[in-house]
Amino acid sequence: MTRSALDAPALDQMFLQARTYNAFTGAISDQTLHQLYDVVKFGPTTSNSCPARFVFVRSPEAKAKLGPTLDQGNHDKTMAAPLTVIVAYDLAFFDKLPLLFPHTDAKSWFDGKSEADLTTIALRNSSLQGAYMILAARALGLDCGPMSGFDNAKVDAAFFAGTRIHSNFLINLGQGDPASIFPRSPRLGFDEACRIE
Amino acid sequence: MTRSALDAPALDQMFLQARTYNAFTGAISDQTLHQLYDVVKFGPTTSNSCPARFVFVRSPEAKAKLGPTLDQGNHDKTMAAPLTVIVAYDLAFFDKLPLLFPHTDAKSWFDGKSEADLTTIALRNSSLQGAYMILAARALGLDCGPMSGFDNAKVDAAFFAGTRIHSNFLINLGQGDPASIFPRSPRLGFDEACRIE
Repeated sequence: MTRSALDAPALDQMFLQARTYNAFTGAISDQTLHQLYDVVKFGPTTSNSCPARFVFVRSPEAKAKLGPTLDQGNHDKTMAAPLTVIVAYDLAFFDKLPLLFPHTDAKSWFDGKSEADLTTIALRNSSLQGAYMILAARALGLDCGPMSGFDNAKVDAAFFAGTRIHSNFLINLGQGDPASIFPRSPRLGFDEACRIE
Repeated sequence: MTRSALDAPALDQMFLQARTYNAFTGAISDQTLHQLYDVVKFGPTTSNSCPARFVFVRSPEAKAKLGPTLDQGNHDKTMAAPLTVIVAYDLAFFDKLPLLFPHTDAKSWFDGKSEADLTTIALRNSSLQGAYMILAARALGLDCGPMSGFDNAKVDAAFFAGTRIHSNFLINLGQGDPASIFPRSPRLGFDEACRIE
């Protein structure tokens, strides 16, 4: 069976008309976060390693920890957002492989690797999972404001002390205010970004 | 205006019932690759830096270059696939910022950074763009087989010699053969992967 393309409104919502928002309304419930994760979790990762860890920053106390880590240009909009996701990765992700890849000893493929190699693998795969979260949020009718303008070491100290978990990037979530988007910037043409061999 | 969630068949096609395939049929035309890139390109990246570069490996000559770089378990299925995408990143991505981020001198934010810092940024953002490609392919009715089991240095030598472009991961593309999927492996529960603060 050959599947069809999604219809035009769905492609618009996910990709073509979707935009990065700088202001949001609404509130994000626990139920919505569970729904979101239950979509995100099915995206593919290397050996099903699922190294991403997600902290949903919503309370005033959590926002107070996040605020001082943000670049100036990202501070006010993030403090005002209904919720901010910290997309992070666990360098000890391989400890979960007996659960996640049960049919063989996949843990042994990773647990002797160097910190640098583990970081490459975890950064690659948690970024995939962060992209799944952006697109899953859009698929569920939410809007996103992803950002990497913050101090990773400060976020790690504030949220992940005593672990091997490290921050990757942030996503503000909510109902986007159309007045808060910038005009769309250009993209690379096919021949600048792609090659068919 | 509050957007709705995509309908159940669309969520299934993108996430919930989508699977990693190991065998494919069909052929991928140039037109399909242009359609695919025209969806992928709109996904968000840091400062709209769009560091991903994509090589679509389709001809016997290109497959002959890719074959010797693959891990044994990925060789035959990749050689048999209609097409394999090399998702790569350009460490000199900032050279495109005058085009991509024209309203200020964004190039200066990056071009003095260390190779290690540029690699982190390019790996993060090209992985996002690789995930957009996986999900855009599914949205257009194609199936994917993403892989990181190959020799990155050999791919770089075979496809990107004399540039600052480096391979990230690979995606086989086509119409997936349902007989080629493995039973779905477990995922982490919400409380293992997520925390609400």
